[in-house]
Amino acid sequence: MTDQRMLTGDRPTGKLHLGHFVGSLENRVRLQHQYETYLIIADLHMLTTKNTREDIAQVSENARHLVIDSLAAGIEPDRATFYLQSAIPEVMELNTLFQNLVSVPRLERTPSLKDMARDAKKDEMPYGLLGYPVLQAADILCVKAHVVPVGKDNHAHVEITREIARRFNHLYGEVFPVPELVTSDVPTLIGTDGQGKMSKSIGNVIYLSDTEAEVRKKVTGMYTDPNRIRADIPGKVEGNPVFIYHDVFNKNLAEVADLKERYQAGKVGDVEVKEKLAIAINLFLDPMRERRAKFESQTGLIDQIIVEGTEKTRKEVQQVVFEVRKAMGLTGAFNSIRRKAEKYRKANPAAYPVEG
Amino acid sequence: MTDQRMLTGDRPTGKLHLGHFVGSLENRVRLQHQYETYLIIADLHMLTTKNTREDIAQVSENARHLVIDSLAAGIEPDRATFYLQSAIPEVMELNTLFQNLVSVPRLERTPSLKDMARDAKKDEMPYGLLGYPVLQAADILCVKAHVVPVGKDNHAHVEITREIARRFNHLYGEVFPVPELVTSDVPTLIGTDGQGKMSKSIGNVIYLSDTEAEVRKKVTGMYTDPNRIRADIPGKVEGNPVFIYHDVFNKNLAEVADLKERYQAGKVGDVEVKEKLAIAINLFLDPMRERRAKFESQTGLIDQIIVEGTEKTRKEVQQVVFEVRKAMGLTGAFNSIRRKAEKYRKANPAAYPVEG
Repeated sequence: MTDQRMLTGDRPTGKLHLGHFVGSLENRVRLQHQYETYLIIADLHMLTTKNTREDIAQVSENARHLVIDSLAAGIEPDRATFYLQSAIPEVMELNTLFQNLVSVPRLERTPSLKDMARDAKKDEMPYGLLGYPVLQAADILCVKAHVVPVGKDNHAHVEITREIARRFNHLYGEVFPVPELVTSDVPTLIGTDGQGKMSKSIGNVIYLSDTEAEVRKKVTGMYTDPNRIRADIPGKVEGNPVFIYHDVFNKNLAEVADLKERYQAGKVGDVEVKEKLAIAINLFLDPMRERRAKFESQTGLIDQIIVEGTEKTRKEVQQVVFEVRKAMGLTGAFNSIRRKAEKYRKANPAAYPVEG
Repeated sequence: MTDQRMLTGDRPTGKLHLGHFVGSLENRVRLQHQYETYLIIADLHMLTTKNTREDIAQVSENARHLVIDSLAAGIEPDRATFYLQSAIPEVMELNTLFQNLVSVPRLERTPSLKDMARDAKKDEMPYGLLGYPVLQAADILCVKAHVVPVGKDNHAHVEITREIARRFNHLYGEVFPVPELVTSDVPTLIGTDGQGKMSKSIGNVIYLSDTEAEVRKKVTGMYTDPNRIRADIPGKVEGNPVFIYHDVFNKNLAEVADLKERYQAGKVGDVEVKEKLAIAINLFLDPMRERRAKFESQTGLIDQIIVEGTEKTRKEVQQVVFEVRKAMGLTGAFNSIRRKAEKYRKANPAAYPVEG
């Protein structure tokens, strides 16, 4: 383990599923051994697209889901620090101070921005959504993270963080490490409907917290090769979600090879392919279920992990914001005024409070 | 005096001049008797266009200029609260939370925005400059101001504050009064060069703090009717800055009428017109000089006024931000987690600190 810090995290919008595991969580479980790990529960980012009272009322429960799902998947609470973003107001201070270090056209070139606005069903881009990468820079730099694991979609966001860090250091002196992007081969997992990536809003997901029976039911209902209307018709394996899942989750490689061969020859029914997939996914999830049960047996432990992580992170962030204000000269500005005021009060105890 | 609050203020970029007096200060001196008055020293707004260390190093001195010039002009320290914006970090918190309540196209329609970007000599609009009206909304709403005095240029800005207040109240319940615009007939004073409005960056200004000799010198160098190359040539009074100033600052109306008549008839030299103007402006500034001397004689008093106002305002703002977080449900989210964590700690004193 180096003494370098990593920051990553999620918006608290629901439970984690197999797509999250394949796309990021698996990677985090590995990286936590290399880096001091901060995992942000990014509720302020949620507000850029979901900001009703009803949305916010879900934050605490969804924060718990994020943490328990992460721990179940292998994150160690003594290696990773979870924190709730909105409980650290100093992040919003950094966000405001960073806003002058990046231009509107630069932000408008962020590739995923238009998709986010469309997904959020906003007619007009909210100002805070355009500034999503600035708030993200505040998240990353507020703990002086050295590395940020990113999928291809997020390269552009984090590139803006690097630009803001460089710009700040150039204007005010070296305060921030310019974080490195750790790009991982993060495949996008197709949903059980075979129509697009696994996504809660589409409903084509298998959650890490699903029971054995739920997994069986979801796998039974999975989309396969639509042209194969009978078991004796040769089927396609490529792009077939059932076999994509077999490749990812089934550790019995011989079984997978056998199923593929028979499927392509029209010698196996969907039922058998799916039964074996359900078994494989359940075997894959079983260790997570054990870890989950262990953590859940201690009522309030998840909450304690969030509170402890948030308090620890807030202290760090307060220190960083102190450095930021000092470097910019904002501390000096008010202190200069305060020192002279102090002299006045000492010289005029009777005149205080002031009158014109 | 009502129990309503007014907020207005300036960016701390230099000393105040006659243009400021005519354009806003005179109005504030009157309004302070009607409203509980907050005067923001808006250094965070300065950062949207001037954000080098050198710019920020000027803040404390310029803040003092703003306050002493305001007091000299008639603001009463027991009627008005001055505060330094950057010393109230909670304003930046509100700024971040308000960013999702307004759209990018709405901000792009702000009329004065492009002028500000051009004046700041920025090739590309800084993100923070586009969001200027959002930060302004945070300023106005952080003290729950009821009224904002505005010139015509700023109508659009403050209209955005009203929209944000309404949107917030609609989403989260009634927290903010929707502030009223108090439009005043605020004429723009032409500069001594007769070429445009009085502006420090052009150098065509008479400061409220100028000495008698400085005023005489600046008036002597003023632009008049360029076609009048000799005193016996009839001159134009309309649009002639010397007579504009006579109309504004010379209380001897008979003298002004006489000078105008003789000027139009080619019967008075520029020298006499200007000498009488210098006397009039000095008479106008004399009471300010007396007040200024009184305040300046107490070393540190101006600083004490800023510190006391900032501390008082910060307490108010903290209370408002508390209400905001509560109304949005952010307080509840973290408290729900905190309560459960507390239970865990009580039940597991030995297990603390946590381990996985």
